[in-house]
Amino acid sequence: MKALHFDGQLSLRDVPNPQPASGEALIRVRLAGICGTDRQILKGYSGFRGIPGHEFVGEVLKCDDCDDKPWIGRRVVGEINVTCGHCDWCRRGLGRHCVSRTVMGIIGRPGAFAEFVTLPVANLHEVPGEVPDEEAVFVEPLAAAAEILEQMPLAPGTRVAVLGAGRLGLLVAQVLRHAGAQVTVIGRTGRSDWKLKLAQSWGLNTVRLETAGEVGAHGDAPLQPRSFAVVVEATSSPQGLEEALQLVEPRGTVVMKSTFHEVAHFDTANLVVNEITLLGSRCGNFATALDLLPRDAIHVEEMISRVFPLAEGLEAFNYLESASCLKVLLRNG
Amino acid sequence: MKALHFDGQLSLRDVPNPQPASGEALIRVRLAGICGTDRQILKGYSGFRGIPGHEFVGEVLKCDDCDDKPWIGRRVVGEINVTCGHCDWCRRGLGRHCVSRTVMGIIGRPGAFAEFVTLPVANLHEVPGEVPDEEAVFVEPLAAAAEILEQMPLAPGTRVAVLGAGRLGLLVAQVLRHAGAQVTVIGRTGRSDWKLKLAQSWGLNTVRLETAGEVGAHGDAPLQPRSFAVVVEATSSPQGLEEALQLVEPRGTVVMKSTFHEVAHFDTANLVVNEITLLGSRCGNFATALDLLPRDAIHVEEMISRVFPLAEGLEAFNYLESASCLKVLLRNG
Repeated sequence: MKALHFDGQLSLRDVPNPQPASGEALIRVRLAGICGTDRQILKGYSGFRGIPGHEFVGEVLKCDDCDDKPWIGRRVVGEINVTCGHCDWCRRGLGRHCVSRTVMGIIGRPGAFAEFVTLPVANLHEVPGEVPDEEAVFVEPLAAAAEILEQMPLAPGTRVAVLGAGRLGLLVAQVLRHAGAQVTVIGRTGRSDWKLKLAQSWGLNTVRLETAGEVGAHGDAPLQPRSFAVVVEATSSPQGLEEALQLVEPRGTVVMKSTFHEVAHFDTANLVVNEITLLGSRCGNFATALDLLPRDAIHVEEMISRVFPLAEGLEAFNYLESASCLKVLLRNG
Repeated sequence: MKALHFDGQLSLRDVPNPQPASGEALIRVRLAGICGTDRQILKGYSGFRGIPGHEFVGEVLKCDDCDDKPWIGRRVVGEINVTCGHCDWCRRGLGRHCVSRTVMGIIGRPGAFAEFVTLPVANLHEVPGEVPDEEAVFVEPLAAAAEILEQMPLAPGTRVAVLGAGRLGLLVAQVLRHAGAQVTVIGRTGRSDWKLKLAQSWGLNTVRLETAGEVGAHGDAPLQPRSFAVVVEATSSPQGLEEALQLVEPRGTVVMKSTFHEVAHFDTANLVVNEITLLGSRCGNFATALDLLPRDAIHVEEMISRVFPLAEGLEAFNYLESASCLKVLLRNG
């Protein structure tokens, strides 16, 4: 099959078709999304080697020894953490933290930038008929956005800033607004301008920062330091944390969503003196995301900047680096 | 009066006696404690200039226009944050975060390394007769240790590591053990040896780390990475955070207690992937600390390494830098 492969360099290759292990399904990928984490993997994050890609929608082709035969032919999305099923974390229902997990396209397991992929049947969720592929491919990042609500209470009306108007930031902003928060999306003048306009068209408050650095400098709206109860850091850059810590009020929470390869530095005295909580947040429940999509509460299709055929995967990554875009997808076939 | 004064350099000076403002008491300091934050102030932390010192016990000399006359002659400790009383934070009972606060010996208000100090009567707590000065002087840091319990629930039996066997670490360890946690104090071979023995004599579990750096390297007890639900960072060094993040289990909490002037750096991907909570924690309620002391649940007097007369305050700071010691006190008169 055709697949993108990373071994320090990304290339398009012909590789053997994957063979599903016991309990696994063979899935034909229909559409896959490129995520910030994929770009970080290309910079060395997680030390991954192999086929990247962890956002996909596909259809089950084969599932020989699965108890649950009806999976064949179904359109599915798949949870990316493949767990042992019997460690403490798995027993607590938190298999996403299983110590011996593999993670599709990130840790020790081939990903979805390929014609076919395998996953345990237990990881699969059927996509409802009314949800098109172009929405279903957002289930994984949407679940990650909704994870915040599983980790912390968010009272209606809570003042939330989302720092970063990229793919993840715009999903987080919509999910938290849907949960009742009063959300402001903060982006940079320049590359973020049209993304902030898109957010405005969805009824979100937005603020353009004119320069990197101090939060005090702002574009088209006032932005007071220490004025948000919750700040979500979704900039995918180490500098985002310092800015988030400037924006959050004492006793407030900074949620860190983006993973990046670089080391961050920050003034811990600010965190201590203002008793701020810094909350790491990663993958979420697919069921929650699949429940949100058909309600039209979350705009995802408008976030698709361009769809490339899988065979043009390298061009897709280049496009993502060079252009001011949101989601870039790879279509198989 | 005699006072220690910091203007980029610490010196002993004769300065005018402080004049209590309306609602304030004039207090004769009996005993004052030197804290890690005082040492950080000497390195530039908070940009403080003036008389440092925020841990003290003293007696009220004067309180002319206070409604509450009986304060005169009483032995007191004093909350260090002087607040406006009417901002949102003050109204929520969190005056410690008042935006226009001064903080005795730290921000814009003279401290207790002097013969006399002033504080609003509202900040004072009378010391019960059975609590000697040598215990009462620990109320401020003990309140800071107990603040953790006000910020997060701690189920009985929770596995807690306290990183750092210094003044604050040993107080935190005792307070959390008293609250029912299963506490391990972790220190370095060398300067920490006798402090860990002291902790052992109080029935606390201890682990000696042989080298700086990897948590895997250990001295006299096994120490598994990702094995504590809660890790309290009380090392007063930027490196402590990285170690704490290695010790805490997924979805666990790292409590940051120490303030230092340097910038810390850390791998935020670890925080995100393992969904760790980093909780800044500062000052606490004096009433809680005053309630703990008479119960003999917390050993404080044994932590006193040496008492210097106020006039030898410079020698006291030098001693603290040069020797492996715990609490150093300054006695007035």
